[in-house]
Amino acid sequence: MIRRLFTTMTKKAKAQEFILKTPKGTKDWADKDMIIRESIFGKLSTLFQKHGGVTIDTPVFELREILTGKYGEDSKLIYNLEDQGGELTSLRYDLTVPFARFVACNNLSSIKRYHIAKVYRRDQPAMTKGRMREFYQCDFDIAGTFDLMVPDSEILNILCEGLDELEIKDYKVKLNHRKILDGIFQACGVPDEDVRKVSSAIDKLDKSPWEAVRKEILEKGQSEETADKIWTFVQHSGSIRQVIEILKKSGIDNATAQQGIQEMEVLADYVEAFDIQDRLSFDLSLARGLDYYTGLIYEAVTAASAPPKNASELKKEAKSEDEDASAYVGVGSIAAGGRYDNLVGMFSNNKSIPCVGISFGVERLFSIIKQRTDLSKLNSQHTDVYVMAFGGGDGWNGFLKERMQVANQLWKAGINAEFLYKAKANTRKQFDGAEKSGAKLAVILGKEEYPEGKVRVKKLGQGEENEGDLISVDEMVSFVKLQL
Amino acid sequence: MIRRLFTTMTKKAKAQEFILKTPKGTKDWADKDMIIRESIFGKLSTLFQKHGGVTIDTPVFELREILTGKYGEDSKLIYNLEDQGGELTSLRYDLTVPFARFVACNNLSSIKRYHIAKVYRRDQPAMTKGRMREFYQCDFDIAGTFDLMVPDSEILNILCEGLDELEIKDYKVKLNHRKILDGIFQACGVPDEDVRKVSSAIDKLDKSPWEAVRKEILEKGQSEETADKIWTFVQHSGSIRQVIEILKKSGIDNATAQQGIQEMEVLADYVEAFDIQDRLSFDLSLARGLDYYTGLIYEAVTAASAPPKNASELKKEAKSEDEDASAYVGVGSIAAGGRYDNLVGMFSNNKSIPCVGISFGVERLFSIIKQRTDLSKLNSQHTDVYVMAFGGGDGWNGFLKERMQVANQLWKAGINAEFLYKAKANTRKQFDGAEKSGAKLAVILGKEEYPEGKVRVKKLGQGEENEGDLISVDEMVSFVKLQL
Repeated sequence: MIRRLFTTMTKKAKAQEFILKTPKGTKDWADKDMIIRESIFGKLSTLFQKHGGVTIDTPVFELREILTGKYGEDSKLIYNLEDQGGELTSLRYDLTVPFARFVACNNLSSIKRYHIAKVYRRDQPAMTKGRMREFYQCDFDIAGTFDLMVPDSEILNILCEGLDELEIKDYKVKLNHRKILDGIFQACGVPDEDVRKVSSAIDKLDKSPWEAVRKEILEKGQSEETADKIWTFVQHSGSIRQVIEILKKSGIDNATAQQGIQEMEVLADYVEAFDIQDRLSFDLSLARGLDYYTGLIYEAVTAASAPPKNASELKKEAKSEDEDASAYVGVGSIAAGGRYDNLVGMFSNNKSIPCVGISFGVERLFSIIKQRTDLSKLNSQHTDVYVMAFGGGDGWNGFLKERMQVANQLWKAGINAEFLYKAKANTRKQFDGAEKSGAKLAVILGKEEYPEGKVRVKKLGQGEENEGDLISVDEMVSFVKLQL
Repeated sequence: MIRRLFTTMTKKAKAQEFILKTPKGTKDWADKDMIIRESIFGKLSTLFQKHGGVTIDTPVFELREILTGKYGEDSKLIYNLEDQGGELTSLRYDLTVPFARFVACNNLSSIKRYHIAKVYRRDQPAMTKGRMREFYQCDFDIAGTFDLMVPDSEILNILCEGLDELEIKDYKVKLNHRKILDGIFQACGVPDEDVRKVSSAIDKLDKSPWEAVRKEILEKGQSEETADKIWTFVQHSGSIRQVIEILKKSGIDNATAQQGIQEMEVLADYVEAFDIQDRLSFDLSLARGLDYYTGLIYEAVTAASAPPKNASELKKEAKSEDEDASAYVGVGSIAAGGRYDNLVGMFSNNKSIPCVGISFGVERLFSIIKQRTDLSKLNSQHTDVYVMAFGGGDGWNGFLKERMQVANQLWKAGINAEFLYKAKANTRKQFDGAEKSGAKLAVILGKEEYPEGKVRVKKLGQGEENEGDLISVDEMVSFVKLQL
């Protein structure tokens, strides 16, 4: 990141110092990064439309009370707007709560919607790993009352299709079910009011060893017996059918868990119909932080999600103010989601609309994709033709107006064209401009040729010898179109 | 707008009341409105790329000091983020200041960039006229040191091309030059420190009669003589060459104004090369509010920009809290911009980069375009195929897994497909789902036919008699592709 310290003079000649940069945890996007990111957006939009999705756009800030009580411990990361008189508002923390508010506001009974937009979290940024305070999410959600696990399995299919489409290698989709998890906790003796905090301790098992998590569970007021019982469950992962088998053999006698197990059995059938069972891992330690999930939950991870081997050393060395120690725990999940059947109901007195969805983490996917991309092959400009004039000597005016007229003819025909913004431009500067623009063709107005109604059309990047074709101005547009 | 008052129960059973809506001056975008808006974005992006533009993305908030002192009287409309510890930040007010900050930050000497994004102003919203607190701008700017008026005239050409492309009828592009305007004020006896406030009074001449504006000028401390002298200038408008003639005849003896007049003479030549002179009106009363303009300024207006005839009556009747009286002054300009040569320099000690740009007001263009659009012809879903199962009787399971498999085959082949999320779905409900999705084809799995490896492909919307073609499952994808 480029930072510069400036001293500007105000009207009263009082020195004002400031650092020229974007706010902490945010960045500018430009050039080749934009091409890569737009390509991710394009692929995911096409995927979402393929599954019947329609897009919506909600305001970047919501009434503060809409966001209150939806995010558990993470609520402290919500950005508030200043109270400048009027309503209290906050920047959106995700796209899910605004979606639920949208469904309730518009009294919808069903919708498949996608939304690609920025969300805001006042977290400690870890920019190099793709964790930012302002970042994009690409969400697809299905709202409506349907048969058990049918939209859920399609969402899992979309998750796999999306990662395949983006050519993410060796990813794994971890699954769990909130009802099974809650049932396990209940069966192990965790009081209802402690379930969410034990759950958030368990969620750390992907980064921390059991001993550390066990300690946290004890600190959160649970007995050693409860903790150890929990471990007999949460250590298991495998195919959906394998883990169902383990749960059944465990003889867990809890109605909530039983309901979750039944749902997972139905899911096992459907993911086989979609032929994605091999990408899935039923992992009883997956908990997910957000309060609003009520059923199936999932997150996709890759090798890049894991912490590097020397993470603890890097942690000690971390000093930069922009990158805290958590920069060294890997990028985390690249996509995640779940079922949330009660969220719309929190905004609506008369009815609740069940929902299930997936959110792709664009910045994390971007980091992976950029690493494997040959940047030299990307050009952020789309220019096809560069209009030039060649001449010289006394009375030569550089044909600026003539270049404007020719460029205008090309534009009117829908052809991407540029010219050098100088009246008298030498040949070298014009070729430099053409090269920078990435143009494939030059249209050249010669001092003698153009007054006779002719221009040269020359393919660029083929050496100086190639003089190009001499074409009448009337035929220029059709000739250029043929060449492109 | 839909508003509902809710009472939700918190954990402590304390009633919490809130209104279910988006914040004042913001709205959700969905359905057909999104199609229209995305089409505007698509057309303008294509246009900007045609002229060599590359796109960038900057954070939605900036360090507060970046925005300070750039917007004149309107600075009070800036949205601040709450001070939650750390940097002081504000939502961007436009895309121009962030662009200048970007150019300075990255030490660029030239760039043509476009940026389509939301900006924020704590103004009194007038939603029905397209004036919002959160709204989109589509900006194209050229930064760099080039020959006089060359990029300026291309920007005017882009403005006209954009409005033509969006099929906006009867628009007019008003032009003026800050140096001419400032020179006139100086020549009429306005002290330098009062120039900007007299300028902002003059800017109201499109909505208010001279008498009202004259009163404001007197209130701002100018003499009657000064006001009346100003009127001898600002009442003039016409072609660039006509108004240059008037200015020359006026014998105005002011170096700043002379420089502006010379630049306008150069411009007159170039806009003729681009053949857009007939869309332009040199209007000496155009002032534009923003502080940062230094040269040519312009705004495009249409019939819809003007206030309705009964504006003053409507004003008196205005009562709704969301719509203040200014709802009745027309949508205002649909695109505007100008030259700002000193803005980048405010962020950079060593050099200033001259810039010129145009901003299209999307919400205002949207209002005009939506009004003339046949909404019945738009479908926000992109579904092409609806997968159904027909059957019934004992042991009929509804072929849900089979429909999933077939839909998956279509998705894998890149075909947009949906099916009903019910295990046992009757024919009527499936056809209803297909109709709602806008699908062109149905792929039908018959109870007897499908187990024999065959499906029916039926064109939708052609009556019940048409039974469709019986195709083997292996040939389904290629057959469907042919039909679409």
